[in-house]
Amino acid sequence: MKANVYKLIELTGTSTTSIEDAVDHAIKRAHKTIKSLCWFQVVETRGNIEKGRVNHWQVTLKVGFEVKD
Amino acid sequence: MKANVYKLIELTGTSTTSIEDAVDHAIKRAHKTIKSLCWFQVVETRGNIEKGRVNHWQVTLKVGFEVKD
Amino acid sequence: MKANVYKLIELTGTSTTSIEDAVDHAIKRAHKTIKSLCWFQVVETRGNIEKGRVNHWQVTLKVGFEVKD
Amino acid sequence: MKANVYKLIELTGTSTTSIEDAVDHAIKRAHKTIKSLCWFQVVETRGNIEKGRVNHWQVTLKVGFEVKD
Amino acid sequence: MKANVYKLIELTGTSTTSIEDAVDHAIKRAHKTIKSLCWFQVVETRGNIEKGRVNHWQVTLKVGFEVKD
Amino acid sequence: MKANVYKLIELTGTSTTSIEDAVDHAIKRAHKTIKSLCWFQVVETRGNIEKGRVNHWQVTLKVGFEVKD
Amino acid sequence: MKANVYKLIELTGTSTTSIEDAVDHAIKRAHKTIKSLCWFQVVETRGNIEKGRVNHWQVTLKVGFEVKD
Amino acid sequence: MKANVYKLIELTGTSTTSIEDAVDHAIKRAHKTIKSLCWFQVVETRGNIEKGRVNHWQVTLKVGFEVKD
Amino acid sequence: MKANVYKLIELTGTSTTSIEDAVDHAIKRAHKTIKSLCWFQVVETRGNIEKGRVNHWQVTLKVGFEVKD
Amino acid sequence: MKANVYKLIELTGTSTTSIEDAVDHAIKRAHKTIKSLCWFQVVETRGNIEKGRVNHWQVTLKVGFEVKD
Amino acid sequence: MKANVYKLIELTGTSTTSIEDAVDHAIKRAHKTIKSLCWFQVVETRGNIEKGRVNHWQVTLKVGFEVKD
Amino acid sequence: MKANVYKLIELTGTSTTSIEDAVDHAIKRAHKTIKSLCWFQVVETRGNIEKGRVNHWQVTLKVGFEVKD
Repeated sequence: MKANVYKLIELTGTSTTSIEDAVDHAIKRAHKTIKSLCWFQVVETRGNIEKGRVNHWQVTLKVGFEVKD
Repeated sequence: MKANVYKLIELTGTSTTSIEDAVDHAIKRAHKTIKSLCWFQVVETRGNIEKGRVNHWQVTLKVGFEVKD
Repeated sequence: MKANVYKLIELTGTSTTSIEDAVDHAIKRAHKTIKSLCWFQVVETRGNIEKGRVNHWQVTLKVGFEVKD
Repeated sequence: MKANVYKLIELTGTSTTSIEDAVDHAIKRAHKTIKSLCWFQVVETRGNIEKGRVNHWQVTLKVGFEVKD
Repeated sequence: MKANVYKLIELTGTSTTSIEDAVDHAIKRAHKTIKSLCWFQVVETRGNIEKGRVNHWQVTLKVGFEVKD
Repeated sequence: MKANVYKLIELTGTSTTSIEDAVDHAIKRAHKTIKSLCWFQVVETRGNIEKGRVNHWQVTLKVGFEVKD
Repeated sequence: MKANVYKLIELTGTSTTSIEDAVDHAIKRAHKTIKSLCWFQVVETRGNIEKGRVNHWQVTLKVGFEVKD
Repeated sequence: MKANVYKLIELTGTSTTSIEDAVDHAIKRAHKTIKSLCWFQVVETRGNIEKGRVNHWQVTLKVGFEVKD
Repeated sequence: MKANVYKLIELTGTSTTSIEDAVDHAIKRAHKTIKSLCWFQVVETRGNIEKGRVNHWQVTLKVGFEVKD
Repeated sequence: MKANVYKLIELTGTSTTSIEDAVDHAIKRAHKTIKSLCWFQVVETRGNIEKGRVNHWQVTLKVGFEVKD
Repeated sequence: MKANVYKLIELTGTSTTSIEDAVDHAIKRAHKTIKSLCWFQVVETRGNIEKGRVNHWQVTLKVGFEVKD
Repeated sequence: MKANVYKLIELTGTSTTSIEDAVDHAIKRAHKTIKSLCWFQVVETRGNIEKGRVNHWQVTLKVGFEVKD
């Protein structure tokens, strides 16, 4: 690893099925515009409820990627 | 949205299989007595271990619901 | 429960599939050398990304076990 | 002050105008059913946005009141 | 342990003598209406002062209990 | 709500008059370039002082908006 | 800016009307004895309640000022 | 209560016997120079160990008192 | 003090009587195998409840000791 | 200072030599595209280790800059 | 160590060169009026930027000293 | 990276000269007994003071290493 610089962005992914799926959605979307994604960390796990059931998982994560020179 | 007031309660759901399942249990149980549940946020994820395996996932969450006039 | 003393150790389990699986790995490994594992709490959920997909989930947890006399 | 016991509940008040107004709404609503409210502390200040303007302030607070014998 | 659901409530117990006594007061009072109390965790320790002496210890704790079906 | 992805950005709004006004400034400015702003949360409230009076309120907030496909 | 040293003190201002007013009171009072106040940050927002209304806002803030040689 | 202003100072009290005693020491000492002490909150509980026993409890607390005009 | 290195371990001590006693148990047990214990800091205070009374205090602490060359 | 709006971005700078150097790298890189950088705050200090030595310091910081109209 | 009482004050030291230097400045300045300084802990590390370079490191620390009888 | 398991230990390194040096001391010492050290994160930076100068920097860090099968 060289003396690189990384940027972190914060995203909220959503999913009707699981926490992992919500994270995947966020990362897949970010990958469309940023190819150098390196790592993520989960910041918050929330969700909305409809009729006594989880409707959407809402997982906020920070995603880090290398900033090219 | 009108100028509503919401109440948050704190619950711990348990499950032998997954974090999502533990959250579902807590929300399903709360729904029995409170029909207006709106959202939740995960506060803590713990569990107990038996013979080197997770026995129960214990997920503490805050659940918000509208307080009717 | 007697007036026992417990020790907590911090581990990071990894998995290509899920948070629960990463926790299981860490606990299964710890169980090889410590038979009296009692409980765990998730401290942090991270992961590394390759080609726009989660490559490994990295879940840090504290695991508590009884210290025998 | 005797050796009293207090209970804390968590509420989210909303308002289109200000943080103070959102807090007032939550306390006024709680006062309808609990007459012995003593103090509050603000836990979180959020809001939703519509067309580039704050639509509702959402202020979460803990409210403490004396539990009578 | 079955896949139970627990509720956590937040209380402030007070005492003129000690932290432990303040916790005991809060739990004893809660037990009057809730028989299934399981565990507690101390959230904050405060107190008021009169004439250069602690007048009342004020200990805030979360108390968890099983929610029956 | 579909399985959307949201991005959060962090802004500091300033105002000579109030916290709410500082938040409004930040959101109004962000709205110039991002039309899909959904929600915000206050992260920090600071200010600078001149001659014993608050000169500017400086309120840092996270603002979330939907990332379009 | 030279290599100055600053001191931070912690104050609680109170007001019957607003958070901003409580902050103003604290800063105005501190300014009576310390002329070099530079900045503040809000640490906690609480209040006491009487008859279902906010009686006093209690805002705790840190205030920084330059320590002269 | 008028629109008073309070100051908070941070102290560490020590004791060979208990947490309560360490708090008492700190408050008693502060009372020598400040007569208007109102409340305290415990910030941290530490101690040093000698020969496998607690030698001194070291309890850090914030103490609030009214600032007179 | 030379340029020493210290290690911190995390323990939970339990007691039927007090927080101080739970800390003492943990330190006494650690001292059986580690003679160079220097300091501790309380991380969490919890307990379990039986029949409306504290059954065991459970105090988690970090304990630091010098690592010899 | 007018009623400006600032944006904060989060960066991780790396260096083989020191924390200060890692911060410098991140700021220097950000300055290439943003000329109005005003301040930073260190969020986290980490690093990777190779053969028992720090290989790279990894310092995460928030950097604030003015958003022009 | 007797059952002493310590006071903690909060300072921000600045330096154009390093974190350590900023801490040194704050301690050296405090030592001018308080001779019994014992320990410090770093609370926050910030700085201001000019022309894409760190202009001043601003390190906030708590400094503890013994309060004499 | 396979589905490895890592352990984190907490150490305090000390140095008379700098934060980096204190970290180096801790890692160098840990390396004597654990060859697979991978990463570290700084948890706390403190120090003791003698005669108005920093005597020792005390830097607490978590160090992670791979647990071999």
